[in-house]
Amino acid sequence: MSPRVEVRRHSERARYDRATIDAILDEALICHLGVVVEGEPLVLPTGFGRIGDTLYLHGAASNRSLAAALEGACVTVTHLDGLVMARSASGHSMNYRSVVVRGRARAVTDPVERRAGLRAVVEHAIPGRWDEVRQPSPREMEATAVIALDLAECSAKVRSGPPLDPAADRPPGVWAGVVPLRMVAGAPLPDPDLGEGIDEAPSVSRVRRRFPTLPDDGV
Amino acid sequence: MSPRVEVRRHSERARYDRATIDAILDEALICHLGVVVEGEPLVLPTGFGRIGDTLYLHGAASNRSLAAALEGACVTVTHLDGLVMARSASGHSMNYRSVVVRGRARAVTDPVERRAGLRAVVEHAIPGRWDEVRQPSPREMEATAVIALDLAECSAKVRSGPPLDPAADRPPGVWAGVVPLRMVAGAPLPDPDLGEGIDEAPSVSRVRRRFPTLPDDGV
Repeated sequence: MSPRVEVRRHSERARYDRATIDAILDEALICHLGVVVEGEPLVLPTGFGRIGDTLYLHGAASNRSLAAALEGACVTVTHLDGLVMARSASGHSMNYRSVVVRGRARAVTDPVERRAGLRAVVEHAIPGRWDEVRQPSPREMEATAVIALDLAECSAKVRSGPPLDPAADRPPGVWAGVVPLRMVAGAPLPDPDLGEGIDEAPSVSRVRRRFPTLPDDGV
Repeated sequence: MSPRVEVRRHSERARYDRATIDAILDEALICHLGVVVEGEPLVLPTGFGRIGDTLYLHGAASNRSLAAALEGACVTVTHLDGLVMARSASGHSMNYRSVVVRGRARAVTDPVERRAGLRAVVEHAIPGRWDEVRQPSPREMEATAVIALDLAECSAKVRSGPPLDPAADRPPGVWAGVVPLRMVAGAPLPDPDLGEGIDEAPSVSRVRRRFPTLPDDGV
C-alpha cells in the first residue's frame, strides 16, 4: 500500500484488500475524476469501467481533464449508505464506502485496447448492453479519447453501523441512530421515438435488478 | 461567469444561474473536494453546508485536504438521475445534475462564524438536527477545522431526457430509453443503546421526507 493512499483519519475505516476495493468500484455508476489544470484542482463526474487492474475512462478527444489526468489523476468513488445521527452535533457522520485511486493515467492508443476500454465503460454501467447496440464507427472512435489508470495505488474507506456516542455522553431523551440511504431504479422510460412492438432489452431488466425498484414507479 | 468554470463539453447542458446551482447544492448530502497535494490531485468525499454565497466544510484540525483547499479547491456535487440507453454504444449517457465550485478556500477563525459553519454542515444534511443535540464543546471546537469557499466561481451542468439518436441512426428493434435512478431512505435504525421510550426525533421524519421511502423498509 502506497503512503499516498493511506487512510489517515479514522484509520479503523481503512480497507486495502482488492476484493473490497473492486466491489466498491464495480457497484458504482460514476466516479469523480480529479486533475490539476493550471495548478488548480478540477473535479468532474464521469463514467468508468474496470478490466482487472485497470480503470478506463473516456471522453471527447479534446477533453482537457483526460489530458490532464496523464500528468496526475485521482479517481474517487463513493456510495452513501446512511445518515448517522449521534447525540452530539460533533458525533454526526455518514455511513459510506469510498475508494480513492491515484496515479498517472495512460493514454490508450492501441485500437484493440481502446475498443475494449469503451466496451468496459458501457458494460460497467449496463452489463450486456454493448452487444445489443451499434458498435462505435471509425469516426466515433477517432473522436473519442480513452485513458487507463492502474489500480496500483488505491485504498478504500468504509463506515457502517450506529453512532458511537461514548457512554458518558448520552443525554437522556435524545434519539440516535441511522437513516439508511440507497439508490433505486424506477420503471424504464422508453424513448418517445421508440417504434411499436420493441421489447425491453435484456440489459434493462438486468440493470434494474442491480437496484431495488420503487413499486409505484414513483421516480 | 468565470472561464474557469465554463462548461466546454455539451455547453447546451450548462446552467449558470444561482437558483439552479443552489438547488443542486442544497439537495446534495455530500460533495467531492478536490485539492492539490504535492503537485498531485486528491479527491475526497465530505459533507458540507451552505449559507448564502458560502459553502462550509469541516474536518479534523489536522486534515490536510482542508489545509490544501486554502491554496486551491474544487467542490463538485453530482446527482445521478438516470441511465440513458441509446441505440449506439457511443450515444449512451447518464442523466445528472452537477455543480462545480472553484476557488481558494478561507480558513474560518472567527468563533461565531466557525460555529455557524458547523451548524450549516449538520443542518444541510439533517435540517433541525442541530438544536436537538448537544452542541460542540470548546474542546471539540478546538479539534475542528472549518473552511469556507465562496460561490463566486461556480457552474452547473444538467442532462435530462431521452437518448438523442439521430433519426438516420435508429436500427430497428433496438430498445432505447432511460432507466431513472434516485436516492431513497429506509426505515430509521435506532441506536442499539437507545433507551426505552425515546421518540424518533422530528428531524428524522423531516429528513426521510426529503426522499421517497421504501415501503418494505428493504434497505
